[in-house]
Amino acid sequence: MTRQRIIDVAVRLFTRHSFAGTSLQMIADDLGFTKAAVYHHFHTREELLNAVVEPLFAQVRASIEQAEALRGRNARAERMLTGFADVAVRNRSLMAVLAGDAAVIQMLRAQPEFGDLINRQIKLLADLEPGPAGLVRAAVVLAGIAGASQPILLDFDDDTLRGHFIDTGRRALGLRAPRPRP
Amino acid sequence: MTRQRIIDVAVRLFTRHSFAGTSLQMIADDLGFTKAAVYHHFHTREELLNAVVEPLFAQVRASIEQAEALRGRNARAERMLTGFADVAVRNRSLMAVLAGDAAVIQMLRAQPEFGDLINRQIKLLADLEPGPAGLVRAAVVLAGIAGASQPILLDFDDDTLRGHFIDTGRRALGLRAPRPRP
Repeated sequence: MTRQRIIDVAVRLFTRHSFAGTSLQMIADDLGFTKAAVYHHFHTREELLNAVVEPLFAQVRASIEQAEALRGRNARAERMLTGFADVAVRNRSLMAVLAGDAAVIQMLRAQPEFGDLINRQIKLLADLEPGPAGLVRAAVVLAGIAGASQPILLDFDDDTLRGHFIDTGRRALGLRAPRPRP
Repeated sequence: MTRQRIIDVAVRLFTRHSFAGTSLQMIADDLGFTKAAVYHHFHTREELLNAVVEPLFAQVRASIEQAEALRGRNARAERMLTGFADVAVRNRSLMAVLAGDAAVIQMLRAQPEFGDLINRQIKLLADLEPGPAGLVRAAVVLAGIAGASQPILLDFDDDTLRGHFIDTGRRALGLRAPRPRP
């Protein structure tokens, strides 16, 4: 499907050149399309960015809702941490772009849902420890997992990376691993 | 000094629009200069980026060298963590840009020193725990501290933020706080 091929190439070029450094023309060139062919599907880079992030938003939203449905701040934080580690590993390269690109973040912030999702994630983790300590721990863990998909970790397979993300997050947050169910 | 004013405006515009989204023309407009006046000091955006990051590199380099000069992996990791938290807090907004902008990272990676500094930082922290666990913890802590300078933490003063960065890093790395000297 052409639309999906455009999205896939966009993700690859955003990862390499940042969002602001990638034009619709570059995406067309990479696919061997005319710019008009790309334009038929996406009128602006912003429209394309929305299409790129929507599946990721949907995964994050689902993991937040699962966490919020639980009782007890430990269970909620544990679910949020494991859910986010899972999303981050499955979307490694895209996460690294979105987590830090100033132009992307500014554009995402313009969407009310983005700030809402971040705040709910932070709250689920920060509730473990009231006050500034909890907020900083939550922000470091989320930014660390989102941003750590750096070259040095690319050799690790998904399960290894996810396991160590969760372990690191638990330690930073002071969250004990849940006991295995009998 | 004109050169320094250009650098200051560049940092502000990079923070807002990303590196790729900021042109020398935008910097000139912001200062009320002609583009030729900016061009007199910096011929390319890349030259300007180098001038922007050099003071930050110098601080990171100094903190790495101080850590490497110590004996014992605990003392070295502790020094690296506190030194990096200090640099991150002092350069909050710039760190957030550099940590995540794909175009900036690609350009910095082209400088041999950048990769060298990152690898030495990771090693100083990862030595606490051999194998993948230590590497992931180190990467999450560094990316987390570099990337957590998000709006939600902007209200904290420098000392509060630095203290909680260090505390979070110690927990994630399994590093005990050093005993106060008698």
